[in-house]
Amino acid sequence: MKPDSFRHSPHCCHAECGSPDTASASVRTSAPHDGIPVCGQSYIVPARHGRAIIISEGQTISVTNTHGTQVCDFWAFNRNDLDEYFSMEHTRGTIGRLNPKVGDVLLTNHRRAILHFVADTSPGVHDTLIAACDVNRYKNLGFDGFHENCSDNLRKALLAIGLSVSKVPQPLNLWQNTPVGDDGTLAFRPTVSRAGDVVSFTAKMDCVVVMSACPMDLNDINGRVPVEVSFLVR
Amino acid sequence: MKPDSFRHSPHCCHAECGSPDTASASVRTSAPHDGIPVCGQSYIVPARHGRAIIISEGQTISVTNTHGTQVCDFWAFNRNDLDEYFSMEHTRGTIGRLNPKVGDVLLTNHRRAILHFVADTSPGVHDTLIAACDVNRYKNLGFDGFHENCSDNLRKALLAIGLSVSKVPQPLNLWQNTPVGDDGTLAFRPTVSRAGDVVSFTAKMDCVVVMSACPMDLNDINGRVPVEVSFLVR
Repeated sequence: MKPDSFRHSPHCCHAECGSPDTASASVRTSAPHDGIPVCGQSYIVPARHGRAIIISEGQTISVTNTHGTQVCDFWAFNRNDLDEYFSMEHTRGTIGRLNPKVGDVLLTNHRRAILHFVADTSPGVHDTLIAACDVNRYKNLGFDGFHENCSDNLRKALLAIGLSVSKVPQPLNLWQNTPVGDDGTLAFRPTVSRAGDVVSFTAKMDCVVVMSACPMDLNDINGRVPVEVSFLVR
Repeated sequence: MKPDSFRHSPHCCHAECGSPDTASASVRTSAPHDGIPVCGQSYIVPARHGRAIIISEGQTISVTNTHGTQVCDFWAFNRNDLDEYFSMEHTRGTIGRLNPKVGDVLLTNHRRAILHFVADTSPGVHDTLIAACDVNRYKNLGFDGFHENCSDNLRKALLAIGLSVSKVPQPLNLWQNTPVGDDGTLAFRPTVSRAGDVVSFTAKMDCVVVMSACPMDLNDINGRVPVEVSFLVR
């Protein structure tokens, strides 16, 4: 069993699992056609790539910062209506805080509970302010040509399980260290998380969760060397 | 000439002005069918209501906080593609600051310049963090029944000029005082602007601009008494 593939077996905690996919780390072959991971199985989101999975209400997804240095852009959509999604700007006003922490319930753009933030072994430094990177971000930073980016990773990861969305919502950028100064200035700094740090969220509705191991290598948020993260659902 | 109506005349700075609309302050009759204001004419956004207008690249819109106590939710869309809009999360990373200030160029979700922030007579306290209020916001705050809200004001104001959008983007909440504490906590406080304070933006592309005189009366951001604001295009 390669850790970067999804496995299907009679032990899957969901009925109707599809046939096994290949063990390729590429986005197109990273997920089974139905996107449902095996409970308790650890999967890798390869450096610079994305993964989309489907989890049921009551299940908990844990994301591990394998090396401690990596940002993971993280989204959740209502499985039954992808136009309803985990919204940073709707959540902030209700939790009364810039960024969520353990104990907070995260809201959708319909102001309904979608995820419960249940565990975080890291110092809790995450970001809700900075849009997912996209081709235009790298172009504006002077990069010549196509650069992998979290927005495309979201689209490709969803496409790999037969889904699509019309817009890229603001992600919760796990472990992204973009502190706000007293004067409101923002800085792009390396993570303060440690190798093996884990965050966990319990689904409050059936969800499509998407993760992107951020490919940003033109500032310090990933220490200039994007690497993989991993996840597990129980 | 009632200040809360749009006037059409041969003096309009745009060709193809439509026929005059009524002088009603209601949302349905607030704007001419083409949404194009007369240059130099001051218009009111009545308390708890919204207005949508079309401005051309190079024109400047100025919004006045008539009483100093009012928040105005403010959006801008690409006139030729309403799926491209002024995006707080795309702007923050590029300006390197939580909130824009005079001199900043505001970006769309395609990371293109849409507005240039050219003037601000207020202390510069605005908000980009809190979603536009909506029926669910008031419901979650315990309000029983329908409450006017900025999201509906956006939709109604656009509808009044024959337009619609599929989603309500994060607005720039002019004069909204929701400071971020050292610990990341957010507070909802009265404005620090003064009666007659003005902010101005110059369009970097043809735009649809929408304003909502925020109806929030369940916290302190509008001093518990929503009132009107006004605007003028040159």
